Amino acid sequence: MPPYLLTPGPLITATETRAAMLRDWGSRDGDFIALTRRVRERLVHLAGADASHTCVLLQGSGTYAVEAALQSLVPRDGKLLVLVNGAYGRRMVEIARRLGRAVAVHETAEDRPVTASAAAACLDADPAITDVALVHCETTSGLLNPLKSIAGIVAARRRRLLIDAMSSFGALPLDARRMRFAALVASSNKCLEGAPGIAFVIAEKARLAAARGNATSLSLDLHDQWQGFERDGQWRFTPPTHVLAALDAALDRHAAEGGVAARGARYARNCHTLVAGMRRLGFRPLLPDEFQAPIIVAFRMPCNPRFDFARFYDRLRARGFVIYPGKLTHVDSFRIGCIGAIDEAVMKAAVSAVAAVLAEMSLAGAHLYEPASAV
Amino acid sequence: MPPYLLTPGPLITATETRAAMLRDWGSRDGDFIALTRRVRERLVHLAGADASHTCVLLQGSGTYAVEAALQSLVPRDGKLLVLVNGAYGRRMVEIARRLGRAVAVHETAEDRPVTASAAAACLDADPAITDVALVHCETTSGLLNPLKSIAGIVAARRRRLLIDAMSSFGALPLDARRMRFAALVASSNKCLEGAPGIAFVIAEKARLAAARGNATSLSLDLHDQWQGFERDGQWRFTPPTHVLAALDAALDRHAAEGGVAARGARYARNCHTLVAGMRRLGFRPLLPDEFQAPIIVAFRMPCNPRFDFARFYDRLRARGFVIYPGKLTHVDSFRIGCIGAIDEAVMKAAVSAVAAVLAEMSLAGAHLYEPASAV
Repeated sequence: MPPYLLTPGPLITATETRAAMLRDWGSRDGDFIALTRRVRERLVHLAGADASHTCVLLQGSGTYAVEAALQSLVPRDGKLLVLVNGAYGRRMVEIARRLGRAVAVHETAEDRPVTASAAAACLDADPAITDVALVHCETTSGLLNPLKSIAGIVAARRRRLLIDAMSSFGALPLDARRMRFAALVASSNKCLEGAPGIAFVIAEKARLAAARGNATSLSLDLHDQWQGFERDGQWRFTPPTHVLAALDAALDRHAAEGGVAARGARYARNCHTLVAGMRRLGFRPLLPDEFQAPIIVAFRMPCNPRFDFARFYDRLRARGFVIYPGKLTHVDSFRIGCIGAIDEAVMKAAVSAVAAVLAEMSLAGAHLYEPASAV
Repeated sequence: MPPYLLTPGPLITATETRAAMLRDWGSRDGDFIALTRRVRERLVHLAGADASHTCVLLQGSGTYAVEAALQSLVPRDGKLLVLVNGAYGRRMVEIARRLGRAVAVHETAEDRPVTASAAAACLDADPAITDVALVHCETTSGLLNPLKSIAGIVAARRRRLLIDAMSSFGALPLDARRMRFAALVASSNKCLEGAPGIAFVIAEKARLAAARGNATSLSLDLHDQWQGFERDGQWRFTPPTHVLAALDAALDRHAAEGGVAARGARYARNCHTLVAGMRRLGFRPLLPDEFQAPIIVAFRMPCNPRFDFARFYDRLRARGFVIYPGKLTHVDSFRIGCIGAIDEAVMKAAVSAVAAVLAEMSLAGAHLYEPASAV
């Protein structure tokens, strides 16, 4: 049996979601056009944005859609402020710079949220700023940024907000009727629990209309992609048909579970089970509990010399759990995800597997962070 | 039962290929890293390019990879000659212009191959040209361009060749040991019979190395994507894991069938069955037989007033065959594909379905192209 994926995605999907990939679709046939329309409508509806926004699906990973949004929605003579407290914020800065857009960066500690007051100060200090980008949940550390208050600041100062909601959309509240945003970006394979291969931008129709001719890329031109959907319901270029069918099936499950609130609640239970269990075993989360989003948890890397991360990863893998090997924080850390088609029982089993691996590594009951006493 | 897809892709895949999508993969886990390496190696090997080239996989549709290749491999101060005889050649011109590259266009009739002598004349007339782009099989009309002779001309004049082999790779001969090319672009869901969602560029290692810093896009930067694979075997950004597994399974079937020669022979039989059958029913292919690639066939649109294409499409659809509704040629035409996990029996059944639909439309035995006699 393949292992459980305790990562920020790709993650474990439901059997029914994967089974939706067993059919081939003609991408310009009526059935697939209807599927495309349905998925676009469901995603806009999830954002509470039926009246104001539209959904532009895009082939590729979430980063493609972030780049498409920056390139299409930030005017060539605009200036983008990126509020950075992790790798995904830094990535937006890199994308915008490569595209030749003027960029201001406000970077703060990776274990503390961006504050609304800091955002306000940046905007007040630089009237040239036209657009603001924020990562809702920074997967780097697992941190939740205060989206709603920052959205209020940005709207009050008549700037446009672009949200990277990659790892929050579908599990954490994000409603266009309660806060203003020009666009949010997310993907099929995180909290929506679909297969990877499709990302999307939920954007104000007026912003999309104004984006005509702004992109230098044909593939990542959101305006053109949107116009394609509006013209004949078709994708401009070959879409990942099976992945779209899986996303539609995943949205069925999302609705059946009880929508955003129920999904967020399950992830919160997963996260609580994980953090409490890992704490009992001696691990320390990177973040204070009040900043932790229930998506992925970063733990400080033990400095006990008997703890070897590669061995830890491999032994957990052998017990059926893939955790996230990549480290993006400045502080040495490793990460375990709480999302996907998994529940508390899986998280309990994961904690038990961690306990067993610690015992194998002669670390049961040891002080993981006190190398002196452990030698 | 879903219909047969007689399109240029997405197309009918084998049951085993789709079944490979039933497993979830951790994209940074060792199993998936091994899968990625294996697929890259198999694709390079198919191009006879193990020694000279490497394969850079890319999330997205084939157009994304064309754009990534143009943006990464044509120097910013280079000049691209595009040999155009259809919509996919024109698309390369549009991509290059948007990217701000200098472009020369040699456009010829859509029902005739580009000639090597014309390519030579263009290169001799304009020493500024550094790179030449050619579509191997123009899906617009189904036409095969004389790749090998043009490659010889380009190499002799010390320019670099970029091949759009989207709808030929895996079914028509294309071997780096027999002709020189800087890069070829193709995708998972055409003659390789995988699921859509991945494209790839098989590029000379020296060209990729020289491409550092050339792309303005982060997502479509081939050099960076390649460096990611070389560094740790991982994709820079979330890959469509299920689609890659399907491509690996599809490559198993490609090898089991007998490789490029056997696949091309099956498609040639499919094409012959289709064209002969449609001719018997009174349809006229757009192209002379000698220019027709065994991939997709464009038929002139009947002008008999009893022939209504939307009805024709819908009735064929009801009988289980999806043909290609999009028209890209200047001449009014429709297209029927010969590729995918289908054989002569399917093509015969498709021709029988066309005959039945013509009878339903009171067109059996009628002159499809002679409106006067048909009223």
